[in-house]
Amino acid sequence: MAMTDRAKEILHWYASDNVGVKTNLARLINHGALAGTGKFVILPVDQGFEHGPARSFAPNPDAYDPDYHFQLAIDAGCNAYAAPLGFLEAGADRFAGRIPLILKLNNSDTLAKMAQPLSAVTGSVEDALRLGCGAIGFTIYPGSGERNVMYEEIRELTLEAKAHGLAVVIWSYPRGAGISKEGETAVDVCAYAAQIAAQLGAHVIKVKPPKDFIEQPEAKKVFEKHAIPTKTLPDRVRHCVQSAFNGKRIIIFSGGEAKSTDEILDEVKGLAAGGAFGSIMGRNSFQRPRAEAIKLLQAVMAIYKQSA
Amino acid sequence: MAMTDRAKEILHWYASDNVGVKTNLARLINHGALAGTGKFVILPVDQGFEHGPARSFAPNPDAYDPDYHFQLAIDAGCNAYAAPLGFLEAGADRFAGRIPLILKLNNSDTLAKMAQPLSAVTGSVEDALRLGCGAIGFTIYPGSGERNVMYEEIRELTLEAKAHGLAVVIWSYPRGAGISKEGETAVDVCAYAAQIAAQLGAHVIKVKPPKDFIEQPEAKKVFEKHAIPTKTLPDRVRHCVQSAFNGKRIIIFSGGEAKSTDEILDEVKGLAAGGAFGSIMGRNSFQRPRAEAIKLLQAVMAIYKQSA
Amino acid sequence: MAMTDRAKEILHWYASDNVGVKTNLARLINHGALAGTGKFVILPVDQGFEHGPARSFAPNPDAYDPDYHFQLAIDAGCNAYAAPLGFLEAGADRFAGRIPLILKLNNSDTLAKMAQPLSAVTGSVEDALRLGCGAIGFTIYPGSGERNVMYEEIRELTLEAKAHGLAVVIWSYPRGAGISKEGETAVDVCAYAAQIAAQLGAHVIKVKPPKDFIEQPEAKKVFEKHAIPTKTLPDRVRHCVQSAFNGKRIIIFSGGEAKSTDEILDEVKGLAAGGAFGSIMGRNSFQRPRAEAIKLLQAVMAIYKQSA
Amino acid sequence: MAMTDRAKEILHWYASDNVGVKTNLARLINHGALAGTGKFVILPVDQGFEHGPARSFAPNPDAYDPDYHFQLAIDAGCNAYAAPLGFLEAGADRFAGRIPLILKLNNSDTLAKMAQPLSAVTGSVEDALRLGCGAIGFTIYPGSGERNVMYEEIRELTLEAKAHGLAVVIWSYPRGAGISKEGETAVDVCAYAAQIAAQLGAHVIKVKPPKDFIEQPEAKKVFEKHAIPTKTLPDRVRHCVQSAFNGKRIIIFSGGEAKSTDEILDEVKGLAAGGAFGSIMGRNSFQRPRAEAIKLLQAVMAIYKQSA
Amino acid sequence: MAMTDRAKEILHWYASDNVGVKTNLARLINHGALAGTGKFVILPVDQGFEHGPARSFAPNPDAYDPDYHFQLAIDAGCNAYAAPLGFLEAGADRFAGRIPLILKLNNSDTLAKMAQPLSAVTGSVEDALRLGCGAIGFTIYPGSGERNVMYEEIRELTLEAKAHGLAVVIWSYPRGAGISKEGETAVDVCAYAAQIAAQLGAHVIKVKPPKDFIEQPEAKKVFEKHAIPTKTLPDRVRHCVQSAFNGKRIIIFSGGEAKSTDEILDEVKGLAAGGAFGSIMGRNSFQRPRAEAIKLLQAVMAIYKQSA
Repeated sequence: MAMTDRAKEILHWYASDNVGVKTNLARLINHGALAGTGKFVILPVDQGFEHGPARSFAPNPDAYDPDYHFQLAIDAGCNAYAAPLGFLEAGADRFAGRIPLILKLNNSDTLAKMAQPLSAVTGSVEDALRLGCGAIGFTIYPGSGERNVMYEEIRELTLEAKAHGLAVVIWSYPRGAGISKEGETAVDVCAYAAQIAAQLGAHVIKVKPPKDFIEQPEAKKVFEKHAIPTKTLPDRVRHCVQSAFNGKRIIIFSGGEAKSTDEILDEVKGLAAGGAFGSIMGRNSFQRPRAEAIKLLQAVMAIYKQSA
Repeated sequence: MAMTDRAKEILHWYASDNVGVKTNLARLINHGALAGTGKFVILPVDQGFEHGPARSFAPNPDAYDPDYHFQLAIDAGCNAYAAPLGFLEAGADRFAGRIPLILKLNNSDTLAKMAQPLSAVTGSVEDALRLGCGAIGFTIYPGSGERNVMYEEIRELTLEAKAHGLAVVIWSYPRGAGISKEGETAVDVCAYAAQIAAQLGAHVIKVKPPKDFIEQPEAKKVFEKHAIPTKTLPDRVRHCVQSAFNGKRIIIFSGGEAKSTDEILDEVKGLAAGGAFGSIMGRNSFQRPRAEAIKLLQAVMAIYKQSA
Repeated sequence: MAMTDRAKEILHWYASDNVGVKTNLARLINHGALAGTGKFVILPVDQGFEHGPARSFAPNPDAYDPDYHFQLAIDAGCNAYAAPLGFLEAGADRFAGRIPLILKLNNSDTLAKMAQPLSAVTGSVEDALRLGCGAIGFTIYPGSGERNVMYEEIRELTLEAKAHGLAVVIWSYPRGAGISKEGETAVDVCAYAAQIAAQLGAHVIKVKPPKDFIEQPEAKKVFEKHAIPTKTLPDRVRHCVQSAFNGKRIIIFSGGEAKSTDEILDEVKGLAAGGAFGSIMGRNSFQRPRAEAIKLLQAVMAIYKQSA
Repeated sequence: MAMTDRAKEILHWYASDNVGVKTNLARLINHGALAGTGKFVILPVDQGFEHGPARSFAPNPDAYDPDYHFQLAIDAGCNAYAAPLGFLEAGADRFAGRIPLILKLNNSDTLAKMAQPLSAVTGSVEDALRLGCGAIGFTIYPGSGERNVMYEEIRELTLEAKAHGLAVVIWSYPRGAGISKEGETAVDVCAYAAQIAAQLGAHVIKVKPPKDFIEQPEAKKVFEKHAIPTKTLPDRVRHCVQSAFNGKRIIIFSGGEAKSTDEILDEVKGLAAGGAFGSIMGRNSFQRPRAEAIKLLQAVMAIYKQSA
Repeated sequence: MAMTDRAKEILHWYASDNVGVKTNLARLINHGALAGTGKFVILPVDQGFEHGPARSFAPNPDAYDPDYHFQLAIDAGCNAYAAPLGFLEAGADRFAGRIPLILKLNNSDTLAKMAQPLSAVTGSVEDALRLGCGAIGFTIYPGSGERNVMYEEIRELTLEAKAHGLAVVIWSYPRGAGISKEGETAVDVCAYAAQIAAQLGAHVIKVKPPKDFIEQPEAKKVFEKHAIPTKTLPDRVRHCVQSAFNGKRIIIFSGGEAKSTDEILDEVKGLAAGGAFGSIMGRNSFQRPRAEAIKLLQAVMAIYKQSA
């Protein structure tokens, strides 16, 4: 397809990257139903690792099968499909070249009690390359006492990924002893999470939809002094987008726990209105029956298309 | 031998692997009494390291000798023989090419009290290659506070093994501060253990036979809501097989402590009925007199053959 | 431009360095409004990472944009612009060759509570090279229980940077369990911080303006015995300059929190009078409206020019 | 010299090793007064490091000199001389090619109080090669909470040593929080220590002479059930030899603290009667006057020769 | 200059080293006022790092300047000058080839409170090579709970240094939880420190002058039983020299805190009488006015010359 102006604009922000990385970013931008719009809907499936198989797949048992998710992401017209090593390896050959893949390089499970949140690195840039992926994915937990371990892991993986022409997607989910439970989705914290991911060199940043709450006292003073609006979801999303290098980094939002279709579409409208680049929807997609999931994803895409 | 349809089907699930790995998987599938059936009985002997020599070999003193186990596995028609570095090195030359070997790359002993369960890495991919092995074996303890160490060790070993054409077998045995003693064999935990091993990129997964108990409250809700059956061993095994990528990863079950022949065969029937790909039997094999052990292993193989 | 005598003198102190390093030092010396004077004003922008986006950029929202800072540093006539990976990568291509760049290789944030202060390494020498930077920057916290980690990180980065022709800038900010809050800017501690950075092999050292306070009892005895003057800021700066190899290492001073223009210029006069090589001014620059910031930076440069 | 049948038999157990390793094992077997018998007496001198110089060498001050020990081992007809880096380096050139050398690669001292016993790695395989050694030596402390560190160090050193044609000697001395003081020489523990060293890939295993005591309750049950004899030293040595792969690994015994000549010879007779491959005698050799030491070592060799 | 017999004798003890190392040892032996005597006086200046700039250099402010120390060491006729990276780098080019240099590769400061004494590694063998040094220097703290870290660092640095033809100088200063404050200079401890450094492969060992005190109860028994004399400094030095491989390793003694000229010369006479190979004098040299320092150093050299 021809490059749209918006696609060119976005790529222009990544001018320091090598051609390999830009090629993979262009593939992400130009794939699926939102191709060329500069909007993104990505299917992530790491819940089997993160929450366990029954909690993830029992609602829609077809989803136990790794092939299911490739097909779902392709048929729904997602920009990309993201998953851990095992899930991607299981289908990468059969679905080679049909959708951009993001190899999720670290994962956690709910079986162990960790002193401070810290995922294990479970895949490698070499794996991403041999499986034909276009990007690596990595979760950081700002706020964790193990912050440095994660930042330094992604530093090395990012350097290696970029040298090999892969894009870098960072899931930036604050948690740990440094912040309260409510603070994990506070607007100052979500925006800070976006900034950290951007400064670490992410091409694509994933944060949670921010709530109308400010965690850090020093930030609160600034929000008040400069009257930064936080009442509505679009307000708060706008602050996060601004915090992602004034909108010069792709920032998308996760859906979180399974919700009703109406709740999801309402939230997505708010995200789109605030200037979000898109959504990454896991459980809300694959835990629905296939036809329903495709319908929902297409409705989400329609909202983003309209906002483009 | 000619490739059976089932062998082709199984290999097809590993389509993303290189030819070297597929060759070694084919050797595992096509060796011994169960060759071509897609069922597996493997002899593992790491108890000398894990429990000490007398506890392991005094019941059948011939088993102190490393050659004994090679011969037993060959004569009983096992698909493969798995052991730590020392035991394999002691016989690998004399028995070269007579049975697929799995080098167990980490081990624990009962002499030290560790804060959280964590085996030591005691062998290397290079060792596996120089000894003519077809696969590496590795134990993870999901639930341990040292989980990340193990997941990251197997990440590196798996990457290296696959690059060199070796298959990867993961023993996934939940234990540690994150779960109760009873929870170690809970059905939700065993299935989760299978999922984790699969996501980590294992070709073959070994778990314990699951009991009719659910450890995690969040999982319990899901089991109840979706009426996942757990009453019979076949029910529970079925859930584990499903959790191993909907049966698209080879999942076998361990025998555990020495038991009577009838108990073993009953259990194996339950495993086979639930769709298990096979069994891995250590103490129940080598602690019996040789003739008895061969008879038992052949009875086990007969059950699996029938279920194939 | 022709080499001034002062530029030659300064370069002469770095005679052991290779030509690549000397070239990049010469670029630092010979760029901007202070070119050739041997004085330096550098724009550092790592507050987005260190304090969060709103606290850093809400006072002047244009500063959310990474391009803003490149342009500000260029237009104000700074010697160099220093920032973390993300911020530099975002503009390095567009502003290539227009101002010397310093890639800040480690960063901290305010979300986590660390037992002892320790930044994460967030960039690499390879990044500095591929982005066309002339120097790396690194923060050490003498006084922290994690001191050795930082000293050993900068040891390796310095070795690698120098081998590749990059200059090394060390931010030496004492803090941690070893010293009191007030002691962080004590004159003995600031001077010690300068000495440590110099001994670690820094080409350029950044410390805080020292206060009239002595932290260490053993140092206090020496200051008294040898009547080292500490009353005025020039006195104290002179001691720091002396502690930077008798003025044979470039030592510059940070501005700290946002202040009034008069306060800043007063402080800079004191720094210049004490023999400081210059200032590094972040928040006091980019949190002002652009025109005001440029005016302020030029006033600061004028003071240093006069003192040259 | 011609290869004896026994030498061939022993080498045959190491058939998986490369020719380089087998050559060095053959040199160990075929050197000194016991050449070709398959029995071994080795002189180890690491007490200077482990206990301090005065405690080690004051009883016979000639022994402060590194050359003394080379000459003693040569003149007494030992199979090999083992020592840390400094001691070997001091004489390796002068005594080049006159006796097989074993470079002890880790050491401890009595000055520091360690939470759990763990030696420092103090030499490298490269050192062993450049000094003309035929083997590396390494101490493990099964029972220590730092067990994994040691097992993983020897894993790497063993891999590297074998690749370069060096033999591997493991000192397996259980101690640490996992076992009682008395348990350090319990027969079950010594045998377990032998098994662990063998499984880790040692060519030669050194344990302490076992006492008539069983440490582990689970082992006690097995010793009783299978009536494993432990009354006499030969009984207990036999169990250790059996635990070293049914006698297919060279297992030798240390002498421990300085004792009277009669006590030593009595003990050696017991070791020989139990099938020990030999002794490793440090303090009992070099703390005696040279003539006495040689006489004692020759008496020990005579006992082993008789038992061969 | 022609090789003296003593120089040849000393080099003969290092026969296992490669020609590069022997060349650098020969340079150390054959430089300065004591050239060829086999005695050594070395100027070390790491106090700027270790104690801070004012405490080190305020007594003689010329010493803030790195060039000062090169010139002092040259003019006084020292065998070598030792300092950390920054100080050497600052003058290495200007003073190239005029005196052997020892790059001190680890350093501590007084700002942080460390749980157990452990210096940071602050330089590299590559640095030593690119700066034209002939040796590396490294401090170990036997008695520290971090002992293993230090021993393993120097193991790697020593291996690398020797491979590149550099000599190795170990400062062996016992301290930490394992020994009492008084014990740090106990005669048994100083001798043990010398032994450890020698076993670690040091070519030159630096210890503190031992006091008439025995720290370790087990050593005390041996000193008494064998009547090792410890009353006079020469007695104690003799024991240390003996503990340095019977005098076959170069062992020199530090001067410690600043003292009067008479006290220093008295101590040096004692050291020389006990067979010390020389002294390493920092504060007592550079904290005196230059002329006085040179006079003192020459007086020290005269004492050693007489004892040669």
